[in-house]
Amino acid sequence: MNTRILGENNLVINRFFNLDGRAYEGGALSVKTKELLGLVASLVLRCDDCITYHIVRCAEEGVSRDEIFETLSIGLIVGGSIVIPHLRRAVDRWDDCERMRQAQA
Amino acid sequence: MNTRILGENNLVINRFFNLDGRAYEGGALSVKTKELLGLVASLVLRCDDCITYHIVRCAEEGVSRDEIFETLSIGLIVGGSIVIPHLRRAVDRWDDCERMRQAQA
Amino acid sequence: MNTRILGENNLVINRFFNLDGRAYEGGALSVKTKELLGLVASLVLRCDDCITYHIVRCAEEGVSRDEIFETLSIGLIVGGSIVIPHLRRAVDRWDDCERMRQAQA
Amino acid sequence: MNTRILGENNLVINRFFNLDGRAYEGGALSVKTKELLGLVASLVLRCDDCITYHIVRCAEEGVSRDEIFETLSIGLIVGGSIVIPHLRRAVDRWDDCERMRQAQA
Amino acid sequence: MNTRILGENNLVINRFFNLDGRAYEGGALSVKTKELLGLVASLVLRCDDCITYHIVRCAEEGVSRDEIFETLSIGLIVGGSIVIPHLRRAVDRWDDCERMRQAQA
Amino acid sequence: MNTRILGENNLVINRFFNLDGRAYEGGALSVKTKELLGLVASLVLRCDDCITYHIVRCAEEGVSRDEIFETLSIGLIVGGSIVIPHLRRAVDRWDDCERMRQAQA
Repeated sequence: MNTRILGENNLVINRFFNLDGRAYEGGALSVKTKELLGLVASLVLRCDDCITYHIVRCAEEGVSRDEIFETLSIGLIVGGSIVIPHLRRAVDRWDDCERMRQAQA
Repeated sequence: MNTRILGENNLVINRFFNLDGRAYEGGALSVKTKELLGLVASLVLRCDDCITYHIVRCAEEGVSRDEIFETLSIGLIVGGSIVIPHLRRAVDRWDDCERMRQAQA
Repeated sequence: MNTRILGENNLVINRFFNLDGRAYEGGALSVKTKELLGLVASLVLRCDDCITYHIVRCAEEGVSRDEIFETLSIGLIVGGSIVIPHLRRAVDRWDDCERMRQAQA
Repeated sequence: MNTRILGENNLVINRFFNLDGRAYEGGALSVKTKELLGLVASLVLRCDDCITYHIVRCAEEGVSRDEIFETLSIGLIVGGSIVIPHLRRAVDRWDDCERMRQAQA
Repeated sequence: MNTRILGENNLVINRFFNLDGRAYEGGALSVKTKELLGLVASLVLRCDDCITYHIVRCAEEGVSRDEIFETLSIGLIVGGSIVIPHLRRAVDRWDDCERMRQAQA
Repeated sequence: MNTRILGENNLVINRFFNLDGRAYEGGALSVKTKELLGLVASLVLRCDDCITYHIVRCAEEGVSRDEIFETLSIGLIVGGSIVIPHLRRAVDRWDDCERMRQAQA
């Protein structure tokens, strides 16, 4: 789908997609910290697709289970009970990632 | 104002205020990382008072200027141009914090 | 300002303003309950002007201080810490209303 | 899923879940009124899972069909046409609840 | 479903649904421009059902593919990466509309 | 303030600011239509600074008073009564623009 959108050659959309990737590259903050920032932002804005993306990226960056739960707990406090359904799905995604990691080990 | 609200003895509000403090205590993640999470969540939800609070806490925890700007950049990418007025005020607050730190040195 | 807007004779805006008034009229639910619904909706959506409006209307409808705090506590749980600055201003407005009521007594 | 999350023993998340339950207990406001407040807050924040939860709780507390529609109408006025898809699903859930009540009678 | 809701005879809901239709009628602005306004508003508020509705209406009003993408690009810039999953589904809906138009030609 | 932020040389922020400008350049849609899209998006997301910016830009692009009110009416229908305080300030800003235009004539 991204290929289809980028193939449209809309300058603003294409540059935005590129910039979206650049924002999470390591710098003064590590890639791992930036993915946690992306995760908490996605949680309080309640976007399941974005949460799933950052959960997977966090797993790839070696984030621990406790770090995920502490990040989710901040999103819960900031965003309130309205984020609970998304927090549940985030935990579900995280458990999937852990299962895959164990299957590969 | 917080004292006035807590003095009301509403169990839910008082426990929430207490829990809000606990969420940012160090654990698997450092206090500093948690404040950055609080900052980016406040930025994408566009709450100036919350942004100011976390900017001040970040300064107290020794966050660097580059780390602040990278955190703000993720909030900007996730939240879009609608966060720009809040990003401007965040930078203004951060500059105040740096000036105060220099005046104290 | 409302007069100026209504004088513009934009059919959609004028009918919406009229409908906005109708929604809070008593029916199966009392006017008082409807104002509490308007208050909690305004709190979780974090609109200070709307909160002030419904706080004043609640005071006019004889809502008690405990009822206000319980309504605010539900808004706080649902909406999270991001509503705290608005909750503070709501309490401030409510205290103003109580002082005016006492001054008139 | 809740058991799995609570079993994680994250203090902030566990206390929040507990507090979320306490917020809807009867006090100065009845349980029924508090569920209506939860419903309208969920509607304007557009969370289908939360709406379903409060619709079911409202049915359990004996809320009438007219009271539900008046609550939804306030959510619609406050939140605008963007809540219409959620209002439709809320009515669908409510109709399910009524059918179950009739099947049990 | 709309018939079922309208049959309930809740004055506020019924008048709102009527007004919602009136808002997109041609006036100083064309129907086409108004549908683009409805589309961008739905995109930044991230409501898939509303986006689908306005995408279909835009196709009916003869909006071009480039006009759709430029509208989506403004929604993306204003609303940030959090709208990307909805932008993807919007493009998917638009492609469906184009396919149907070609099948009918 | 923008100069201060851009001087920071954060690649993501600087490119985003540049892209934000590009999004409103004329293309398949006119600059005027794009400014109306920016206005309605800012209204439903309830950002006064963004609304003011697009109101001024609309005035510069020769948008008529009726076109502004029709755009605001769509924002009101989509976003609900919660946008009313922002709609009032938008009308206020528009009236300022018209007065300035008349003073210059």
